[in-house]
Amino acid sequence: MKINGTPYRTIWATADNQAVEIIDQTKLPHIFTTLRLDTMRDAERAIRDMQVRGAPLIGVTGAYGVALSMKHHASDAALKASCDMLLNARPTAVNLRWGIERMRAFLAPLPESERAAAAWQEAARIADEDVEINASIGRHGSEIIRALHQKKKATVNILTHCNAGWLATVDWGTALAPIYKAFDAGIPLHVWVDETRPRNQGASLTAWELGQHGVPHTVIADNTGGHLMQHGMVDMAIVGTDRVTARGDVCNKIGTYLKALAAFDNGVPFYVALPSPTIDWTLQDGVKEIPIEERAAEEVTHISGLCDDGQVRRVQLTPQGSRAANYGFDVTPARLVTGLITECGVVMQPDSRKLSALLKPA
Amino acid sequence: MKINGTPYRTIWATADNQAVEIIDQTKLPHIFTTLRLDTMRDAERAIRDMQVRGAPLIGVTGAYGVALSMKHHASDAALKASCDMLLNARPTAVNLRWGIERMRAFLAPLPESERAAAAWQEAARIADEDVEINASIGRHGSEIIRALHQKKKATVNILTHCNAGWLATVDWGTALAPIYKAFDAGIPLHVWVDETRPRNQGASLTAWELGQHGVPHTVIADNTGGHLMQHGMVDMAIVGTDRVTARGDVCNKIGTYLKALAAFDNGVPFYVALPSPTIDWTLQDGVKEIPIEERAAEEVTHISGLCDDGQVRRVQLTPQGSRAANYGFDVTPARLVTGLITECGVVMQPDSRKLSALLKPA
Repeated sequence: MKINGTPYRTIWATADNQAVEIIDQTKLPHIFTTLRLDTMRDAERAIRDMQVRGAPLIGVTGAYGVALSMKHHASDAALKASCDMLLNARPTAVNLRWGIERMRAFLAPLPESERAAAAWQEAARIADEDVEINASIGRHGSEIIRALHQKKKATVNILTHCNAGWLATVDWGTALAPIYKAFDAGIPLHVWVDETRPRNQGASLTAWELGQHGVPHTVIADNTGGHLMQHGMVDMAIVGTDRVTARGDVCNKIGTYLKALAAFDNGVPFYVALPSPTIDWTLQDGVKEIPIEERAAEEVTHISGLCDDGQVRRVQLTPQGSRAANYGFDVTPARLVTGLITECGVVMQPDSRKLSALLKPA
Repeated sequence: MKINGTPYRTIWATADNQAVEIIDQTKLPHIFTTLRLDTMRDAERAIRDMQVRGAPLIGVTGAYGVALSMKHHASDAALKASCDMLLNARPTAVNLRWGIERMRAFLAPLPESERAAAAWQEAARIADEDVEINASIGRHGSEIIRALHQKKKATVNILTHCNAGWLATVDWGTALAPIYKAFDAGIPLHVWVDETRPRNQGASLTAWELGQHGVPHTVIADNTGGHLMQHGMVDMAIVGTDRVTARGDVCNKIGTYLKALAAFDNGVPFYVALPSPTIDWTLQDGVKEIPIEERAAEEVTHISGLCDDGQVRRVQLTPQGSRAANYGFDVTPARLVTGLITECGVVMQPDSRKLSALLKPA
């Protein structure tokens, strides 16, 4: 998508194919800066320090990390060491594991002399596949927005939570892909952006990427969506997801469930956008079966932002001695989900039968 | 309630009865400091600058403001001028108007020479009445907590939103009064404190006052309550309110509706604590009839907190150019409310008939 008029991906090979560049997402939204990753260790650090974030982008960065290491040492031992080190950068990231294991399986049978060039091509292929999947999600989802516009004949108001935009993928995003496709097609729309405490990915990343691409949007506190829905100010909600169960329960950023309840209570359609591999076919009841990560309390007690003096500073919000809890995700039961938007099409009123008919790998 | 072991009210007459003192609530939770109000203009400034906040406390401060002005000028003209100036400090505050009009009606018939002493006594009476009302709310509500504890035979987990604590009143609070009464009676309890964006009254004021009184509590992002309720980690929710309709719809801080939906979806009892004059008998459908105040976008785009250098600083959270919207309140329909806790008793499953039977003034 565009930054100040120029098209970007979140990760790209340098012109000489010797390194990759990324956007340093820890500096957003206040500072836009890119970083060059020359070595596997650079890639490992970018993943660990969350300069890249979002499951698909982490996976692609991991794949490029393997490719960067092959340029210097392409032995079996080097391949194993690189994969292990990259996996440890964020041990619970499923996509990171997927990307690295795909590289390992692809490279292991090849002679050492071919590995460097082949690895570079395979990492690029993984990146391109991610772009194509999200573009497909965007095409399917934009038809929903188009239909709402044809019915309403006025600006379509869309609420989103957290950041499932192009910054979390290589391009397009998941939840935001339909929005970008519809916007680029000239459909008038406006996005309500939940700030998404505690990490504020909405207020920082979603607002920034929508603004850079020129999409009209308004940042709101996470508490606000219910009121807007009660007053007809939201035509649809669309979010991403980290994990969907076989029957369609949706694990996503904490607070998603509350918005889904409000959407259901007010007859507002609630959509979830995802690449089909996000479905975990081994799980049914998401509330009972998905363990919810507890993250550092500091993400609740402290927040960073831009001071009047131009410095990015961290401030403490809570009194000394008050403890805080930080659950990263919640689960929205399938009964509250209007449709799952995937690269293969939209599953309305999802359940086990419909999901497996359209999406289950043979 | 107690601050570091010492009992306080939020407003009190000085020993010589020449002035009142308040806690400067704009400095909390990072700095505890009191302010002396010597003149009507001091009181007006304290209200305008939100050094005092919370409907009941604003009303009492307004009453003391009138009393302070009578010490210097007790003519009819002075009474009118003082009342008008104090009303303008926060023109939409219903309790401020109520407190000032009560003082005006009480003082107008009196000879000028008696007004100063009478005003001082009347303001003290208003303060004492507020304390008594909230203590009654606390007694009724603490019985609900006691019953939950008798059933569960373990720590009772209570979720609250915003600050409806003693800092918003003269003492005890509304939503927190049952918690303080139960805690003081030795019932084991723990409070989940919603931080309450955008103004963070939970993370700053509720956490601070619970901590100072010694009540176990944990601050959470506003997004978290649904997840906790899904997992049996909340035994009841209790909030305050700014306005209740004749049929029991509840207007309160934005986000309350989302928590009520989650409580309903999970069978968690959802209570609202209020002094009975909070009921507006002229309204029925709160969603349709109550206008919701839009506040400054800056409360969403910026936040204040304590920096590492010990200074309280304001930081910007959103990118340049992203606009924000700030709706202050939302309305929770009566169908989601388990009970209204008032000074006259608890109205379970509130509706027009039950409310008017217990509470409607003749």
